Amino acid sequence: MSDRHARGMARLREVDETQVGQIIASLREIAPDFADHVIAFAFGDIYARPGLDLKSRQLATVAALTALGTAGPQLRTHIRGAINVGWSREEIVEVIMQMAVYAGFPAALNGLAEAKEVFAPVTAPAESGA
Amino acid sequence: MSDRHARGMARLREVDETQVGQIIASLREIAPDFADHVIAFAFGDIYARPGLDLKSRQLATVAALTALGTAGPQLRTHIRGAINVGWSREEIVEVIMQMAVYAGFPAALNGLAEAKEVFAPVTAPAESGA
Amino acid sequence: MSDRHARGMARLREVDETQVGQIIASLREIAPDFADHVIAFAFGDIYARPGLDLKSRQLATVAALTALGTAGPQLRTHIRGAINVGWSREEIVEVIMQMAVYAGFPAALNGLAEAKEVFAPVTAPAESGA
Amino acid sequence: MSDRHARGMARLREVDETQVGQIIASLREIAPDFADHVIAFAFGDIYARPGLDLKSRQLATVAALTALGTAGPQLRTHIRGAINVGWSREEIVEVIMQMAVYAGFPAALNGLAEAKEVFAPVTAPAESGA
Amino acid sequence: MSDRHARGMARLREVDETQVGQIIASLREIAPDFADHVIAFAFGDIYARPGLDLKSRQLATVAALTALGTAGPQLRTHIRGAINVGWSREEIVEVIMQMAVYAGFPAALNGLAEAKEVFAPVTAPAESGA
Amino acid sequence: MSDRHARGMARLREVDETQVGQIIASLREIAPDFADHVIAFAFGDIYARPGLDLKSRQLATVAALTALGTAGPQLRTHIRGAINVGWSREEIVEVIMQMAVYAGFPAALNGLAEAKEVFAPVTAPAESGA
Repeated sequence: MSDRHARGMARLREVDETQVGQIIASLREIAPDFADHVIAFAFGDIYARPGLDLKSRQLATVAALTALGTAGPQLRTHIRGAINVGWSREEIVEVIMQMAVYAGFPAALNGLAEAKEVFAPVTAPAESGA
Repeated sequence: MSDRHARGMARLREVDETQVGQIIASLREIAPDFADHVIAFAFGDIYARPGLDLKSRQLATVAALTALGTAGPQLRTHIRGAINVGWSREEIVEVIMQMAVYAGFPAALNGLAEAKEVFAPVTAPAESGA
Repeated sequence: MSDRHARGMARLREVDETQVGQIIASLREIAPDFADHVIAFAFGDIYARPGLDLKSRQLATVAALTALGTAGPQLRTHIRGAINVGWSREEIVEVIMQMAVYAGFPAALNGLAEAKEVFAPVTAPAESGA
Repeated sequence: MSDRHARGMARLREVDETQVGQIIASLREIAPDFADHVIAFAFGDIYARPGLDLKSRQLATVAALTALGTAGPQLRTHIRGAINVGWSREEIVEVIMQMAVYAGFPAALNGLAEAKEVFAPVTAPAESGA
Repeated sequence: MSDRHARGMARLREVDETQVGQIIASLREIAPDFADHVIAFAFGDIYARPGLDLKSRQLATVAALTALGTAGPQLRTHIRGAINVGWSREEIVEVIMQMAVYAGFPAALNGLAEAKEVFAPVTAPAESGA
Repeated sequence: MSDRHARGMARLREVDETQVGQIIASLREIAPDFADHVIAFAFGDIYARPGLDLKSRQLATVAALTALGTAGPQLRTHIRGAINVGWSREEIVEVIMQMAVYAGFPAALNGLAEAKEVFAPVTAPAESGA
């Protein structure tokens, strides 16, 4: 698994350095191998493919997770990643709003609530020590 | 409704000239006003907003419709639109494959089947007279 | 099961006399007992409860099946039932359109396509002998 | 947008006066324009259409949001709205229970849990000062 | 209803003795009859059918609830039930991981998070007094 | 990829020899690499894990695909696979019926319709030459 895993780790670090530790830690006790699959398959096999640039992939993921409406924690993670790869907050808000057309207003409103939570630490300097 | 409608028509024509007629025709008997709402709201109010470029919006829509798995006709329409606004077939296939990670392999496999159908008329010269 | 079943049969006949035979026939070979559960539980235990009138229940079902987007055959059946219990075509179209707000435009467009199919035999006199 | 917006505001006030302020406030920082779209499109264009009465629309929305199972905050809001437009608690509970048939028992059980939360302030006098 | 109810109670006790009280208590104020339907239909009519053994049924339920991603409380309940009828923690983790293939990684990750919560009281002796 | 791929091919052959060719053929033109990922990841990494027996995995997949309601072609494939690994038709029908409890009657009815189609060639001797 080492090549795929290394490629996945590299890709994941581009998206969000802090995620690497989080994914591994959250799965350590319950399903340690699964962290390897997330990294090797999701990031190493799919996200690292050359046919579509990382920035576009990240927007597609934010759109899909907003539309599904069942993946709050993952949506927050990928909103953070979208900022890291170069999307502005305004653009992220636009793509979430757009999901009202395809998945309904509740999906968009709940996606915006997640974005608000992700953006909060930066807009609220008092919390920035956390 | 005229300004929103005109802006929506302009946007929709950028995505796919042929859709304008299709949407209106398909709804004429059953819900004629609804065609106006699709055009004015979905395309005039949302898709025409300046905060995110049309090409990115189109990719996000293909991603979301693939992930939802309940919108075959709309996915085909938007795959066609994605080509019209400049995405290559390879890139469209990439974003659909990526949905395996977020919505499962069946969603990606069914999305690829829709793409195959959209791409078919061009790869199959015998049908190109249609 | 006889009381629940009899009550379910009576309720189902109010919704759509023709459904009774269809449900039983479609399940005869594959899961004959399941027809009894659909009739006894869905229609006898739930639909026949006195706390909400049948007409309102029927509208709620059309709304929910449109929003889910995974139940085409059942949506057609319940659109037919909605007409039988007194809703006009216009009202049914309205509630399906409304689902654009809660489940997205594709759900509403696909629901309208089902309604069009249900309404067709009546608008197309040539088929009306069926 | 003024006519649609005014019509939407009027409709929204009929459903729930307190919602107007909540929607605007929750979106103020993150997507201020989106509040206008919720009001103008969802309430002004769709909910205010004359083809179906407001009370029926409200029941349809509660049914659909329960069935989807991804819209807790919106379901609570619309349960409150359903009471405001004249549905009894018993009728709301009936339509949520009915969703067990179309979307499964978990959807109905989770919808009942939301209803319980909405009804709570009134049944629990100790909290009524809030 | 007595036979079905008795059979449902017996089946439910095999799955999880503690659930009987919980279901009845949680629905007592809001929809007392619904507890009877959960017990008589879900457990008495379906879960008690002889055509498939209880242990297999329990695994199927954990798989389905993980895949749906909208039924957190019910998933926790049925993970607990799966342990009671003889599945090991490792097997439960395996079936949840498997859902990544059919419903996407977020569904599996969120299912694993629920499993972690269910398993926690036993692995963390300090909390076992609760 | 060779080890994972070989393990996946072996596992896939246990489930359904005929699927190997079908998956590769259906993706050949549109996304040839994706067939490798289905085989290596879905079958090689997940389905081949020793922590849960193949027969149980197959039942879990049929349950999940029925509940999702968006994966008709995959459900048919896995119903066929379930028979291949030792489940009787009666048991498959039972697990699909059980999904009425967790995902609603339409999901179960549509799943039963898929099962009927899969079982048909064998019950209809006239077609058995295919």
